[in-house]
Amino acid sequence: MTTQWDDFERRMYELKDLEGVIGLLGWDEETYTPSAGRAARGRQTGTLEAIRHRWLVDPALQDGIAGLLADETLDATKRVMVQRVERQARLASRVPESLVKRMAEARSTALAAWQAAKAEDDFVSFAPHLATVVGLLRERADALGSDSGDPYDALLDEYEPGMTEARLTPVLEELVAGLVPLVQRLTEEGRAPDASFLEQSFSDAGQWDFTVRVLADLGFSLERGRQDRSAHPFTATASEDDVRVTTKIVEKQLFVSIFSTIHECGHGLYEQGFDPAHARTSLAAAPSMGLHESQSRLWENQIGRSLPFWRRNLPGLREAFPGQLDDVTPEQFFGAVNRVERSFIRTEADEVTYNLHIALRYELERALLSGALAAKDLAGAWNEKMQAYLGVTPPDDAHGCLQDIHWAWGAIGYFPTYSIGNLYSAQLLAAYEAERPELWSDVEAGDFARLLEWLRAKVHRLGHLYDAEDVVRRATGEGLLVRPLVEALEKKYLPIYGL
Amino acid sequence: MTTQWDDFERRMYELKDLEGVIGLLGWDEETYTPSAGRAARGRQTGTLEAIRHRWLVDPALQDGIAGLLADETLDATKRVMVQRVERQARLASRVPESLVKRMAEARSTALAAWQAAKAEDDFVSFAPHLATVVGLLRERADALGSDSGDPYDALLDEYEPGMTEARLTPVLEELVAGLVPLVQRLTEEGRAPDASFLEQSFSDAGQWDFTVRVLADLGFSLERGRQDRSAHPFTATASEDDVRVTTKIVEKQLFVSIFSTIHECGHGLYEQGFDPAHARTSLAAAPSMGLHESQSRLWENQIGRSLPFWRRNLPGLREAFPGQLDDVTPEQFFGAVNRVERSFIRTEADEVTYNLHIALRYELERALLSGALAAKDLAGAWNEKMQAYLGVTPPDDAHGCLQDIHWAWGAIGYFPTYSIGNLYSAQLLAAYEAERPELWSDVEAGDFARLLEWLRAKVHRLGHLYDAEDVVRRATGEGLLVRPLVEALEKKYLPIYGL
Repeated sequence: MTTQWDDFERRMYELKDLEGVIGLLGWDEETYTPSAGRAARGRQTGTLEAIRHRWLVDPALQDGIAGLLADETLDATKRVMVQRVERQARLASRVPESLVKRMAEARSTALAAWQAAKAEDDFVSFAPHLATVVGLLRERADALGSDSGDPYDALLDEYEPGMTEARLTPVLEELVAGLVPLVQRLTEEGRAPDASFLEQSFSDAGQWDFTVRVLADLGFSLERGRQDRSAHPFTATASEDDVRVTTKIVEKQLFVSIFSTIHECGHGLYEQGFDPAHARTSLAAAPSMGLHESQSRLWENQIGRSLPFWRRNLPGLREAFPGQLDDVTPEQFFGAVNRVERSFIRTEADEVTYNLHIALRYELERALLSGALAAKDLAGAWNEKMQAYLGVTPPDDAHGCLQDIHWAWGAIGYFPTYSIGNLYSAQLLAAYEAERPELWSDVEAGDFARLLEWLRAKVHRLGHLYDAEDVVRRATGEGLLVRPLVEALEKKYLPIYGL
Repeated sequence: MTTQWDDFERRMYELKDLEGVIGLLGWDEETYTPSAGRAARGRQTGTLEAIRHRWLVDPALQDGIAGLLADETLDATKRVMVQRVERQARLASRVPESLVKRMAEARSTALAAWQAAKAEDDFVSFAPHLATVVGLLRERADALGSDSGDPYDALLDEYEPGMTEARLTPVLEELVAGLVPLVQRLTEEGRAPDASFLEQSFSDAGQWDFTVRVLADLGFSLERGRQDRSAHPFTATASEDDVRVTTKIVEKQLFVSIFSTIHECGHGLYEQGFDPAHARTSLAAAPSMGLHESQSRLWENQIGRSLPFWRRNLPGLREAFPGQLDDVTPEQFFGAVNRVERSFIRTEADEVTYNLHIALRYELERALLSGALAAKDLAGAWNEKMQAYLGVTPPDDAHGCLQDIHWAWGAIGYFPTYSIGNLYSAQLLAAYEAERPELWSDVEAGDFARLLEWLRAKVHRLGHLYDAEDVVRRATGEGLLVRPLVEALEKKYLPIYGL
């Protein structure tokens, strides 16, 4: 079987190379592509994606996969590599090219309509485009199919393989049930921490230097990666040895760069942490969006918004901005980075209310897909849920159902992966702390290597050897759970709010 | 025939997209790729090149080409598009994959050996590697074939389509015959201009800002391109709307950045100037390396090293470096940028001696390829020619036959394109000046748009509609000529040297 494996391996390497190049093109588009070059760049990415698609649906690949999977002597790790590619090839073959094309066109029109609608707060003009996209997503779900027969599962599975609506719904309901009263207590009975010392301008150079130092401090390799700037921070993987994060610097909003960098650093550490023996293979990938997000959230929220972290880092921040933060204590800083607010915008939401924004979207997108909610009725349903979960009503749809790009872009099943990430991150850190009670003194001492090594061993190096929930189960003894997150939030926020 | 054309067009677009992506990968490798990411980047570029090769040798493409070329009703421009792709496909099919692979391996070994040999001034250790590369180039030449049966023509044709050794040799001999006495007169009888005011440090930021301003001033679009830094300046085309030049800043050598920028600007203007109607086609390309080089040399040497150019630009340079050049006159500056020296290193050579460095390499590489000169005897032959043409003998082989990367890299037939570029640039500017005698007052007034528009009309917009010499013939009335360059050099340099 050597020849069959060699042929498969070559194809897998090429696929990975193509994906890396597509990653680099995306990075370049958001960082250095000159303004007039974006259209041509879009076409080039389209060409590479078409080559990738042709590669995946090539009958010679499918034959090779079938042959290898039928070979009982195949090494177990190689078998998983083949299975991962088989999944990609199967999904690629199931969606007819005509549907891919119609979706690309509808998305392109819907994105333009969404941008205009958001700018003009005109939901009515966007609703028919949303209806079209949802209709095409229903077709896509039918084409993909799912074990349960549930169309939502087919879409969710693209982002969170193995996860189902039946498994997820009670989890998110339990999460809402835990968070709503906590938010209520904090905002109604608690004393919000002061953040007035942030109302000043922080130099671009100071923010840049500080964030690069934090990146290196947390263990991100700047030999195998880099940081640049972009309008919307992201992480792009050009290869196993070339992982690029971006940050955004706003002089009057110090936290934007700091927490963007730490968030993307979490993604970047994951991408830099796959087993080198799996480089260029289908295993050098996270098993799901949710597990990927667990890494960014763990570093951003649990480490980066902790008191020990700021005990360690406030001196460096003071040096970066001489005279600007001299009177601020680590405790004050810790309070300021952990203010809880009933706000309208998901991307600006704090750690506690964030998951309520997600739960609302999860419910609404399932209703849209099933047809229980018509696209035209979205705005009203949105505002009702906001009132129920967050006790506020958006002033307009631009701050309501028009705020996110996801649905216009054709992504249903994506939002819940953010909450899955938050849940997994709490589970993983709780398990680590149980093993290493000195966690917080490590953090205060700037020893992040020990935690990173645990994450490397339990999560990063595995890559896509197992599905996400299995990775978490092996690391913590349990699958997706609500309790650790809610407990961690209560433990952290009640004292901050003097409760 | 619509379907056959549509199929061909799609393939041509994809080819162009692939080439743009390969261009971007190369740019990224020299600018922003993190140090440890280079190996993976090399593999990715290799994968895209393999895809490109497979694309070119695809029998379906060859059938399509044959069908289109047999169709007498095919539009003339489309026919040229097909012919250009046919040439690429033919050359790609002629060289067997095994030879490509052996060459890649030999090149990789030879490059490492060359670097070590250059560092240690040890030609003997490099000679066997050179012999291997030359042997493989002979095989390549045989595989490619040429109308004349001359192996050198087969290699030259890859860089300078349509040019032959029989055509080129007398031209370069005439050039040598014109230049040797000029260099002798200037260096022996003339008074070298003073450049001592350059012996100071010029700030990085000042150099950067000045070069970006010059780029924009000359007409390079920063919406459809950008400038970055790299160790060796170059121009990379990511797409018709994304052309990237680089420069190199050395604080103690002001001219490195300035003339690198203007040189690459010339390449960049060409790449930004193809007919938009030919975007993504095989016509959106220069017909030869020599014609491409004519554009960089025209802007760098003829415009950028002219007195009117510095009459216009010295004030801006003074602003960039307050207090550092206040006493320097445009005439002094003009002298300093035009010093002629019998030096050892081609890349540092002035405009007058440069072509002697090329003529020497042209003779030696033909002798290597034909077998008339054994690789082991190169060092001696090199030093003899240096004495004959430039009247100096290199102190060692590192400053002699080991200085350039080209042969180790497997490029024979490349060097003469530099001189072809110099010759074409003089012909083109002479023709333009005959049409527009106010050229130099335009330059002094900063009106570069008129010259650029002429170059756009006569050279850039044509792309690869004609071969290089035909482009020049249409623009100037004559093919490759020596006289205009030698006359321009005499006219410029004799007065500078007080003769």
